[in-house]
Amino acid sequence: MADADVDVVLLSVGADLPWLIGYEAMPSERLTMAVVPQSGDIHLVVPELEAPRVTVADDLFEVVAWHETEDPLGLVADSVGGGATVALGDQTWARFAIGLQDRVAGIRLQTASRMLGELRLRKDSVEIDMLRTAGAAADTVSAALAGERFSGRTERQLAASIAEATVAAGHDKAAFTIVASGPNAASPHHEPGDRAMQRGDVVVVDFGGSVRGYHSDTTRTFAVGDPPDDVAEAFEVLVEAQRVGRKTAEAGVAAEEVDAATRTVIDDAGYGKYFIHRTGHGIGLDVHEDPYLVVGNDTALEEGMAFSIEPGIYKPGRWGMRIEDIVVVTSEGLEALNNTDRSLVVVG
Amino acid sequence: MADADVDVVLLSVGADLPWLIGYEAMPSERLTMAVVPQSGDIHLVVPELEAPRVTVADDLFEVVAWHETEDPLGLVADSVGGGATVALGDQTWARFAIGLQDRVAGIRLQTASRMLGELRLRKDSVEIDMLRTAGAAADTVSAALAGERFSGRTERQLAASIAEATVAAGHDKAAFTIVASGPNAASPHHEPGDRAMQRGDVVVVDFGGSVRGYHSDTTRTFAVGDPPDDVAEAFEVLVEAQRVGRKTAEAGVAAEEVDAATRTVIDDAGYGKYFIHRTGHGIGLDVHEDPYLVVGNDTALEEGMAFSIEPGIYKPGRWGMRIEDIVVVTSEGLEALNNTDRSLVVVG
Repeated sequence: MADADVDVVLLSVGADLPWLIGYEAMPSERLTMAVVPQSGDIHLVVPELEAPRVTVADDLFEVVAWHETEDPLGLVADSVGGGATVALGDQTWARFAIGLQDRVAGIRLQTASRMLGELRLRKDSVEIDMLRTAGAAADTVSAALAGERFSGRTERQLAASIAEATVAAGHDKAAFTIVASGPNAASPHHEPGDRAMQRGDVVVVDFGGSVRGYHSDTTRTFAVGDPPDDVAEAFEVLVEAQRVGRKTAEAGVAAEEVDAATRTVIDDAGYGKYFIHRTGHGIGLDVHEDPYLVVGNDTALEEGMAFSIEPGIYKPGRWGMRIEDIVVVTSEGLEALNNTDRSLVVVG
Repeated sequence: MADADVDVVLLSVGADLPWLIGYEAMPSERLTMAVVPQSGDIHLVVPELEAPRVTVADDLFEVVAWHETEDPLGLVADSVGGGATVALGDQTWARFAIGLQDRVAGIRLQTASRMLGELRLRKDSVEIDMLRTAGAAADTVSAALAGERFSGRTERQLAASIAEATVAAGHDKAAFTIVASGPNAASPHHEPGDRAMQRGDVVVVDFGGSVRGYHSDTTRTFAVGDPPDDVAEAFEVLVEAQRVGRKTAEAGVAAEEVDAATRTVIDDAGYGKYFIHRTGHGIGLDVHEDPYLVVGNDTALEEGMAFSIEPGIYKPGRWGMRIEDIVVVTSEGLEALNNTDRSLVVVG
């Protein structure tokens, strides 16, 4: 904090707080905020009715429980001097950022990720073990999908069953489930709906859960019945792009080079304009965090970094496809945490 | 906006955006933001890969899809003049609030709820119908709980089955499920865990889901086997407090008066220090929104306002209890949207 010229770090909802002290704030109009001064004790300001949830060992911090009629931002503001430089958790609600500015004269806010992103970027062995456990659990779910019937079920039904399987396979929680079928598969973040799947569909299944807060995130693409030729052709390109991405990612390589490597394969095959997103994102307590594999990110990959490699090809109104694995840079090269069949699996 | 002296409204994650245009932003580091100027067209800035999700009729606004390598905040900042007064959605991530301040000289941020809270406060008949549908679906789930076996199951197992039932009963989604048993019930926002329920437990079950975005939220308390005398005694007080709350709430009464009414019953019976939260919260697209039934809120209740009445008594380390209904102020008096048995239901 001294190096970064930050007087106080304030953390609320989001992953920074559990990363630091093991407690996750409930997203709520009732403020939960850790006050971390450059020197002195950490205080965790929590609503009185949520104080019993703070069961983590609290020798790292002191709990300040505020009653419904108190002004919690006032309590926080009292520990922040006028003119202080404050690193504020990125996902903190804007109402609290604005409220702090109203209460602390000359406060200078910056995003906490400027400091904490750097610290969270390289996972230690305990964190990697949890990512590994989550990845293996996700693979259990993926592998079982090959034996599922897709035809006749709605996206929503399949998504619900995947979410259930995500927990049954060993995650503490399901985090998200995308089932995007037919033309819907061209929408990378499609919300599963009432469309019934049918022969001829390409179906993108992208899901993940968390193990002690650390996430899995994997995508496989399925064909209901034999795929049309144009789909099969594009899929070969996609498989190659994803393989090249995994081959390129290693310590010392810039994040954007991995993006360039997968993109070049897809561009060269003439599908460039259908690959409408970056190649990947870091993962840990957040599903999306540093490092991002995207043009302009020249961060060199290092041991301990965990991220997705997930090129996709999306033909609007027609079909979409994506292959996604989480990988970790280790001293012995790249370790893929997802290892199920990456081909276009034909299902019934 | 002219009356409020606001030049631009900027809405991102949270319920303001779906309330205004029917589209919900994904919580993400990729910015989604509606730019609503005092005059002129509304623009919805969305990540290119999420543009296909914007399926609502867009004659109200123009979609601006940004590519992964663009700076979306720059796009927003271009539509906000220097020195502008901006009403920013309350739940917008702080990183975007800070980013706007870095990009727009002299920008003055205020919370959008100062304007929109007032507009969202009174529900119209369509909104009330959705709250009614959600409330009835929740009651289906509550009523069925009386026939469930609690003993031997873990909180987590019961919570999972309630979440499933919440959808099966007609909600589009389950929003939250609290199952808090034995001493855990003294923690109002307890996260369901691996504690197995047993005879002698008091169990607080608080859950809700949404129908087209509008939420249910109801709490019933169960006794596993015959309750101990001290629990039964306290529960009679709680039932009376909740009844008095419903009797007090009507058009023209201040929100804080309802809180005072329930609190007086509990105080007079000697349990005052165990009622550690406000009496209720408004509900709609957000589970918690205006009006809050809390000391200091002198907002007069009006036709169309929907809120919870949910007193609770929590003995730390021992037990907890809460009764919660959603109610709506109508021209014919108060309508309770939850109507299942409010007594301490004995289960096996």
